[in-house]
Amino acid sequence: MAEQANGGYSGKILRVNLSNKSTSVETTDNSFLRKYLGGAGFVTYFLWKELGQGTDPLGPDNKLIFALGPLTGIPLPGSGRNCIGAKSPLTEGIAKSEVGGFWGAELKRAGYDVVIVEGKAAKPVYLWIHDGEVGIKDAGHLWGKNIKETQQTIRTELGDNLLRVAAIGPAGENLVRYACIMNGLFDVAGRGGLGAVMGAKNLKAVAVRGHQAPPISNSQPVTELRKWMAANLHLVKDFCEYGTGAAMEAFEAAGNLPVRNFRDGVFPGIKKISAPTIKDTIRIGMDACFACTVRCKKVVQVKEPYFVDPAYGGPEYETLAALGSNCGIDNLEALAKGSELCNAYSLDTISAGEVIAFAMECFENGLLSVKDTDGIELRFGNEEAMLKLIELIARREGIGDLLAEGAARAARKIGKAAEEFAIQVKGLEAGMHDPRVKPGLGLGFMVNPQGADHCCNLHDTMYIGENWRVKELKHLGMPVPFSLEDIGPRKVALFKLVQQKLILLDSLVVCQFLPYSFEQLNDVVAAVTGWDTSITELMRIAERTLTMTRLFNLREGFTAADDKLPPRFFQPKTDGVLVDKPLDPAKLEHAKRYYYVLMGWDEGTGIPKPEKVAELDIP
Amino acid sequence: MAEQANGGYSGKILRVNLSNKSTSVETTDNSFLRKYLGGAGFVTYFLWKELGQGTDPLGPDNKLIFALGPLTGIPLPGSGRNCIGAKSPLTEGIAKSEVGGFWGAELKRAGYDVVIVEGKAAKPVYLWIHDGEVGIKDAGHLWGKNIKETQQTIRTELGDNLLRVAAIGPAGENLVRYACIMNGLFDVAGRGGLGAVMGAKNLKAVAVRGHQAPPISNSQPVTELRKWMAANLHLVKDFCEYGTGAAMEAFEAAGNLPVRNFRDGVFPGIKKISAPTIKDTIRIGMDACFACTVRCKKVVQVKEPYFVDPAYGGPEYETLAALGSNCGIDNLEALAKGSELCNAYSLDTISAGEVIAFAMECFENGLLSVKDTDGIELRFGNEEAMLKLIELIARREGIGDLLAEGAARAARKIGKAAEEFAIQVKGLEAGMHDPRVKPGLGLGFMVNPQGADHCCNLHDTMYIGENWRVKELKHLGMPVPFSLEDIGPRKVALFKLVQQKLILLDSLVVCQFLPYSFEQLNDVVAAVTGWDTSITELMRIAERTLTMTRLFNLREGFTAADDKLPPRFFQPKTDGVLVDKPLDPAKLEHAKRYYYVLMGWDEGTGIPKPEKVAELDIP
Repeated sequence: MAEQANGGYSGKILRVNLSNKSTSVETTDNSFLRKYLGGAGFVTYFLWKELGQGTDPLGPDNKLIFALGPLTGIPLPGSGRNCIGAKSPLTEGIAKSEVGGFWGAELKRAGYDVVIVEGKAAKPVYLWIHDGEVGIKDAGHLWGKNIKETQQTIRTELGDNLLRVAAIGPAGENLVRYACIMNGLFDVAGRGGLGAVMGAKNLKAVAVRGHQAPPISNSQPVTELRKWMAANLHLVKDFCEYGTGAAMEAFEAAGNLPVRNFRDGVFPGIKKISAPTIKDTIRIGMDACFACTVRCKKVVQVKEPYFVDPAYGGPEYETLAALGSNCGIDNLEALAKGSELCNAYSLDTISAGEVIAFAMECFENGLLSVKDTDGIELRFGNEEAMLKLIELIARREGIGDLLAEGAARAARKIGKAAEEFAIQVKGLEAGMHDPRVKPGLGLGFMVNPQGADHCCNLHDTMYIGENWRVKELKHLGMPVPFSLEDIGPRKVALFKLVQQKLILLDSLVVCQFLPYSFEQLNDVVAAVTGWDTSITELMRIAERTLTMTRLFNLREGFTAADDKLPPRFFQPKTDGVLVDKPLDPAKLEHAKRYYYVLMGWDEGTGIPKPEKVAELDIP
Repeated sequence: MAEQANGGYSGKILRVNLSNKSTSVETTDNSFLRKYLGGAGFVTYFLWKELGQGTDPLGPDNKLIFALGPLTGIPLPGSGRNCIGAKSPLTEGIAKSEVGGFWGAELKRAGYDVVIVEGKAAKPVYLWIHDGEVGIKDAGHLWGKNIKETQQTIRTELGDNLLRVAAIGPAGENLVRYACIMNGLFDVAGRGGLGAVMGAKNLKAVAVRGHQAPPISNSQPVTELRKWMAANLHLVKDFCEYGTGAAMEAFEAAGNLPVRNFRDGVFPGIKKISAPTIKDTIRIGMDACFACTVRCKKVVQVKEPYFVDPAYGGPEYETLAALGSNCGIDNLEALAKGSELCNAYSLDTISAGEVIAFAMECFENGLLSVKDTDGIELRFGNEEAMLKLIELIARREGIGDLLAEGAARAARKIGKAAEEFAIQVKGLEAGMHDPRVKPGLGLGFMVNPQGADHCCNLHDTMYIGENWRVKELKHLGMPVPFSLEDIGPRKVALFKLVQQKLILLDSLVVCQFLPYSFEQLNDVVAAVTGWDTSITELMRIAERTLTMTRLFNLREGFTAADDKLPPRFFQPKTDGVLVDKPLDPAKLEHAKRYYYVLMGWDEGTGIPKPEKVAELDIP
């Protein structure tokens, strides 16, 4: 019967315990796969089911989970990604991040869909997973090395220049709470400090290699969608031409660009650091993830004074804003260097940039002084200070040790007055868009289980005007048009729908930038797995995962009070178009409550109703 | 653009005011059509928007609305139906009924999708709608005539033997609160007393004739679905072979069959009145609605003693149970006569049977006596009494005048002790299935805006075992299997989904018996209209209509307390498998509250949250 086939999706789990160096392989059945799907669904399930309450994120009981989905590794743009999750050392809630490149597709070819890393190695190790085999190898010689050195050394010693490496650099080793995990040299599982979890386990890297292309139950729909994407690249033409950051000048004009720790609005240097300028200046090429025709990854090269290595790719929009405008910096070469350093050290550029901006605002307000910074004039616009802080944070040296804790913890140590400069939700520093110009993003920042994730931006702004997303909305029966300012019930319903689609993408795991509709995704899932799926089934799966994520955070002590924005967003900007437009807290609170209603959570407490938990059959 | 086309769907409204004999034609735009769809959606919209609070159902301010949908009249089984609605004289809430036959398809060919009848004629009239023209014609000579005479007289005097007539008989004229409207001689808009509304307007009939087949934007999917239906008649083979009532013996065995006013369980005579027996005895053929290959309509003939006219068709399951087992009667010929009489007089057989059973139980308990009944021994099992009461009720003679008010009103007049014998919700007598054996039906009876409608049965029992409905459920991601006994959160979620599908069918307007999936319906809607619709859009439309229906009833003074079952269902049956299985009121109450939650209504009051009303953009 169709519902018992699982064509190209075996759902095989590799479990590795680093404490006792044991490994085991678990199989899953079709009902499990169809209930949790993959990626974010798997990560959430295992963390909910297997982690005890109050687990130390940096202790051996935390679990680091790498998860693929049913579409990983098939010949389709956007399918090369993987999801990684753990309890976050930054938020103490759930962390999950999706990351591109080739690692995910390679793990699929090695025969596994999930790798669960448990325990803690006595000494640094790395994993070597290849064609169903797994080894735990010494990584003493890799410890302290940056990402490029790590990858090259592993490739050399294993004698395979095509193996793929997910690794941490010094920031992960030093347990910087917002260290990331790098797939290759410029694909980043950025948010929530997953690199620190990896470092705490003494796990330097996971190298993978495989030769078994995933089976596909019915390849024709996959071929069709691939051809459709090739014929419709114009739908994502900005990504093709510029990568991320094409619209930064418009962002600044609209008030969406964070300037000096989200304090200001006007940033005259914006043109100097935008993606079109990068194309015309330091860009030497574009790169891509597995099977992707979009090729949105900038490659840049800078000679003196910064000597930026093209191997580390180039800065994404979030990096340009976080290290750039948000720190008051418009020196493009310095930003490229900052991006390279963060990648080399495995630092999340968003949190790093936001933490540095936070520190700069503290400094300018006298909450930090040159005594604290070892003489660094930590002022907005000081690119040398920014670059120096990246070094210090990655190594936890000097002021870097404090800032490595993240903005929220650092603020608590600096003192009450500093707290309003920490632009974060649940401890996660905010992505580089301003909810004052789009309150739907504000709702996303508030209720997103991982905190103020940059991915929340897709919840709102992409649904304005005429584009493929708006067309899909109409098709799904959502009322259009929406305005940016709207944060009423229809916008909340839109938000929930979009959030479900994003969770679905994170579970499949497919890139959120690709213009696939729910229907196209469903058709390909059905084609690969042989399941008779529908959009409503996929939406339901996403709803289950979202509610399970909520339950995880509640178990860790989060309450509805944690679904709140930092005070800055309720203040006007100092200049620019939002100078008299702070967010209205009552409107956001109202939207939050209605979101709870739509999710089947208690309107006041945000706790999923027992009936909803039972309905979704959450264990 | 696709979303502005409305291919085969003009949505033209004919408005007739009988008070001043004016008519007008209104056009609708695409956004209106796509928001309310048709049928039940239109009926609900116009009643919500145009009726004042507290309108007298039998006064001139009530409106009687005949509505078609986008699929009406296309060459596809199930497409010949229409919806009729008004404020109910039985429940004082919203009434709507769907009815088969040929009238709907014919009205479509005459150029209209909606007929709104307002006011009250000074003298009996009928409407003559033909190829865009409309006339208000004298019906003085038709008043008092039964349905067959009425249809024949109109056909003769208008000189067209192929025109279609929707009419009332004496029960409608005499304002029996559960009078129905007859399409032809055996297709019935049965529930809620729409025939009385028609009678109160002095409107005897609406005759229609047209020659313009509805345009179809893309005919291929319609052809494909028609062919699919022809090739898949086995999915509804019981309907093809027996019509309704094939499983009556199994119903009795399972406790689902109402016996003696839902009091008892065992009914040995069941085999004598079931559809297979009808096939082997009095059945002389099967008939069908417009374009339908299922042909589920029994035609029966009985000579002495009852002389049943085959022109009036044969008894459906609901009739066999309501006039039969529920009155303790197993004389098939008498039941066929009862069915004929109800059709001839325009009496809803379900309410009529349930009211008669109510009266029989009152009589057997001494609450009514032969003094009240003019000597009729009104005991269970007395088929002559049953037939006599149909006559008396239709003419409001003797005890019939009291019983013409419906069970709830009659009980209030007879006295407190009688009230527990009135098996009704919101005033509507219960359909012929027992919620004690399937509590999901109980939830349907409770929250259905029209009361304990027989159509609520589709909410539950059809989703057991392996059939096309269960297959669709799986496809839609609903957890299966369900058990009959289950009334937990998953069952409530199933209920809501199924309720939405039924409302969708009632809006399209398509027969609920046909095995079309959401996807097939969506494809055909898109094909006919040229709209880029999706299942989620159609579900959303259904959700809007349901909430609008709720708002209508709330405006009329209904509260959550009206969403309650009669006491009988919380009592055990006297015998049979349910002898120790009454419903648990706490479980039903819990299910009701969770249903409110899923609908976005207040959990306690059942009032739609203002945010939900805004989200659905209800005027």
